[in-house]
Amino acid sequence: MHDAISRLGYVRHRAPRGGAGRRSDQVVAIVVCEPAHRLFTEPFYARMITAAEEVLTGHGVPLAVMTATAATSTIAAPPLVAGGVDGVLLISARDRHPLAVTLAASGIPVRSAGRPPDGIDLPHVDMDNRDGGRQAAEHFLLGGRRAIGVIAGPPGLPASRDRLDGFVQTLALAGMTGVPVAYGDFTHSSGVHGMQWLLRRMPHVDAVFAASDVMAAAAIQTLRRTGRRVPDDVAVIGFDDAPIARRTSPTLTTVRQPVEEFAALATRLLLLSMTSADLPRNNPMLPTELVVRESA
Amino acid sequence: MHDAISRLGYVRHRAPRGGAGRRSDQVVAIVVCEPAHRLFTEPFYARMITAAEEVLTGHGVPLAVMTATAATSTIAAPPLVAGGVDGVLLISARDRHPLAVTLAASGIPVRSAGRPPDGIDLPHVDMDNRDGGRQAAEHFLLGGRRAIGVIAGPPGLPASRDRLDGFVQTLALAGMTGVPVAYGDFTHSSGVHGMQWLLRRMPHVDAVFAASDVMAAAAIQTLRRTGRRVPDDVAVIGFDDAPIARRTSPTLTTVRQPVEEFAALATRLLLLSMTSADLPRNNPMLPTELVVRESA
Repeated sequence: MHDAISRLGYVRHRAPRGGAGRRSDQVVAIVVCEPAHRLFTEPFYARMITAAEEVLTGHGVPLAVMTATAATSTIAAPPLVAGGVDGVLLISARDRHPLAVTLAASGIPVRSAGRPPDGIDLPHVDMDNRDGGRQAAEHFLLGGRRAIGVIAGPPGLPASRDRLDGFVQTLALAGMTGVPVAYGDFTHSSGVHGMQWLLRRMPHVDAVFAASDVMAAAAIQTLRRTGRRVPDDVAVIGFDDAPIARRTSPTLTTVRQPVEEFAALATRLLLLSMTSADLPRNNPMLPTELVVRESA
Repeated sequence: MHDAISRLGYVRHRAPRGGAGRRSDQVVAIVVCEPAHRLFTEPFYARMITAAEEVLTGHGVPLAVMTATAATSTIAAPPLVAGGVDGVLLISARDRHPLAVTLAASGIPVRSAGRPPDGIDLPHVDMDNRDGGRQAAEHFLLGGRRAIGVIAGPPGLPASRDRLDGFVQTLALAGMTGVPVAYGDFTHSSGVHGMQWLLRRMPHVDAVFAASDVMAAAAIQTLRRTGRRVPDDVAVIGFDDAPIARRTSPTLTTVRQPVEEFAALATRLLLLSMTSADLPRNNPMLPTELVVRESA
């Protein structure tokens, strides 16, 4: 981290001050690997893009946002590879995403916000998702919970896998194996379905770790509808510390990821790689932190 | 309109039923001519994109969203023109937007949601913004208001100009000229500044027409902070009928534009032009309607 920060100072020094002098020759694309409507239903993206745009605007660099699923990579790939863009900030790349593969081979400056899928070599910034999972598991263990389930994120997304691995491996160290895992896609409805699946599988569940706050809020709502009390009967921990974590009833215990700092750091490192050709490779990881509120 | 609808029936007939059979050979881009963060701060875009995606998904056509300001048109233009995309839905194109010019010359199927800027010839769908302005002006006149100001949208956006023209011309027919106009950019802060400007210019203002609900809500807040009562001292009319119109205090009288219907119609006409080469030109216009609540 210190290494990254000191180099960021270098970027700031070289960039036009106060954003007055625009680098008119450079443009950046932010590519979100999701269907279009997810920009509006997943608050993570609004936070990421707004924070990244603030950094770019401060450096006088205009940007465009693109969404690109596997099916629409044909739209996003050509301008990125053909030189229409001087740098790409890639968000939420999944396994075998054609665009991530193309970008890795293109030689264009890219920074992935989130560890890229296995086998794809891209400079990146990551959150310590694994340690976030660990903290959630330890909190349940310390609270005496013993019938524990998970509502995980999409298995093709590295951040999802890391949250799940850190959680499950910590429980395994305490001798708990065979933890039931429902897979969701971070949406409210997938949180409801995941919780219903866990309840069928495990009617006496006493703790649930959900890989996003939106899914955790859905789990709380579903548990209450079946007459269960949160946290008395079932403890719930989310992931994000999004604004919704303060609005659930009870308020949500969750793993905070520093989204704005994450976006800003990834953007600054991208800018750095656009101005200096021969940098040592550096993939910083930001810490996550359990925030204890009422739900667990 | 009837002509447009009957042709839509034809599209539906030819499209795969229930979205099961994807047209794997076609992709569509939605291009929003705005800085990236505006996707999240202007609710109009979430409504437009979500509605358009629903239509496309129903036809099995994947889409990507792009934002493109004048400065970032270099990102968006190449894939659109080079054949990476089979159709473009263009939203909120401003005067002299380089991308709108490029698209008009490209021969690729394009549908502009909103009348394109003067001098750019693109098939489009429009709202009757001018008539919305007329309805707002008549409501003020019927209510006996005589010291009337406007917080308009960006003058480079055709929809803004039409709202303003319809409003000002209706007042002129009643013998009211020289109506003061503050220009905003649809944001809350520009609504505050616009209202403050009007109050300095016209301390005894008794009615304000704002070109968006977000700006109207800002105007109400600003008026109340100066001790003025809405609508007793100053009547306020907005434009959109966005969800915020029901949450202001007092609730907002506003000109409703049918956003979802608008996006769906534009998308269906775009799909039609992608499948049938030689269609007669048709640029339908959807009606707007004054919704009277408490603020005027």
